[in-house]
Amino acid sequence: MEFSIILVEPKYAGNAGAVARIMKNFGFNNLWFISPKFSIDDKECIKYSMHAYDIIKNAKILSSFDDVVKKVDYVVGTSSKVSDKDNQHVRKYFYIKEFADEIRKMEGKIGIAFGREDYGLVNEELKKCDLLVKIPTSFDYPSMNLSHAVAILLYEIYHAIQQPKHGKIIYANGKEKEMLHKFFDEFLNKINYPEYKKESTKILFRRIIGRAMLSKWEFHTLMGVFKKAIKK
Amino acid sequence: MEFSIILVEPKYAGNAGAVARIMKNFGFNNLWFISPKFSIDDKECIKYSMHAYDIIKNAKILSSFDDVVKKVDYVVGTSSKVSDKDNQHVRKYFYIKEFADEIRKMEGKIGIAFGREDYGLVNEELKKCDLLVKIPTSFDYPSMNLSHAVAILLYEIYHAIQQPKHGKIIYANGKEKEMLHKFFDEFLNKINYPEYKKESTKILFRRIIGRAMLSKWEFHTLMGVFKKAIKK
Repeated sequence: MEFSIILVEPKYAGNAGAVARIMKNFGFNNLWFISPKFSIDDKECIKYSMHAYDIIKNAKILSSFDDVVKKVDYVVGTSSKVSDKDNQHVRKYFYIKEFADEIRKMEGKIGIAFGREDYGLVNEELKKCDLLVKIPTSFDYPSMNLSHAVAILLYEIYHAIQQPKHGKIIYANGKEKEMLHKFFDEFLNKINYPEYKKESTKILFRRIIGRAMLSKWEFHTLMGVFKKAIKK
Repeated sequence: MEFSIILVEPKYAGNAGAVARIMKNFGFNNLWFISPKFSIDDKECIKYSMHAYDIIKNAKILSSFDDVVKKVDYVVGTSSKVSDKDNQHVRKYFYIKEFADEIRKMEGKIGIAFGREDYGLVNEELKKCDLLVKIPTSFDYPSMNLSHAVAILLYEIYHAIQQPKHGKIIYANGKEKEMLHKFFDEFLNKINYPEYKKESTKILFRRIIGRAMLSKWEFHTLMGVFKKAIKK
């Protein structure tokens, strides 16, 4: 899969810079502009792109939406305007989380198009899209900053295509946790915890530890605490 | 559930404006600043907030991170610095999608803190957080624009809280948890826990409790155990 991010007639250089930065944050490199309303060496563009100005410098500048259609296998449009009427087929859409599931099945070159800051993609462009994606927002104020829309979409795609692994935490294993529960039991005995409450308190402790997903380090520390308490 | 978005010593007024806008896009209203480096009527702030300037106008201005801890039941920190070392428990974290699952179980007041544009939250702040959340990014360029980080987190929370909740567990609130931590501290003193290990063990305990999402019932039971142990 190869992704291109396409900004259709963007007005503000700062937005383009911010888009380049978030692209680099998520490891995307191909940026295409269709008739941008600024020069790519605009100082706002440089400022907001931070360490991602190379993406701006290497961006393709195209003159029409049809150029995009020719260059990619899928054209994905983004739109905040929602239609619930079935017959307005131009505005059929996936919600973004459904799209994230879809994307894993796609292959080839995928172009993701974002419209103008003020009125998005026009109908003629939306008609040429293979898919439309919508980011759900509050009804009170759905109009999102361009680079925020890009940020959220790329975040979901990044997640979908490479399911990040959880750090490298080594969790306490079953034997260790049992040892911890044995110590807790002994501890309750030592503090003369009432017999009739003991069983339910042990279960409660077990639930808490179960939910907390103890690392080995945390296990050893808690063991140390109980050992000291029991000895005392 | 009531969310507050906390910007800790933000430097750029434009970022604050952009944060207000994305908050309104997702229906969040409470914005708190800790010692902002600009005036809230800065023109960049007004410009970037677009139709969400009311959020800026109504924002609380606090003077320290401790003020946050006092005002909410959960302090959620955000951090891009990842630790793979098990014993650096200050930087234990949830990936954002795991956090989205957790959040449905939470109740009360939740403060989500975002650090400075250049170096994020400092260790002293991170230690006071109940949970840490991390947005996975490319290793090449993990440094994300502040308002982009807010956008992605609020997008996930917005999605998570619209899903139906399971059961109706009543959770321990912030004050109760602080009481538990006070008792744990006293308990460590009573068992002559080595002074040099105390601080890190307390943080570790805080993290475990934060992750385990204690119910009120569990809170009272644990308090009972500590009371008995301390008395003994």
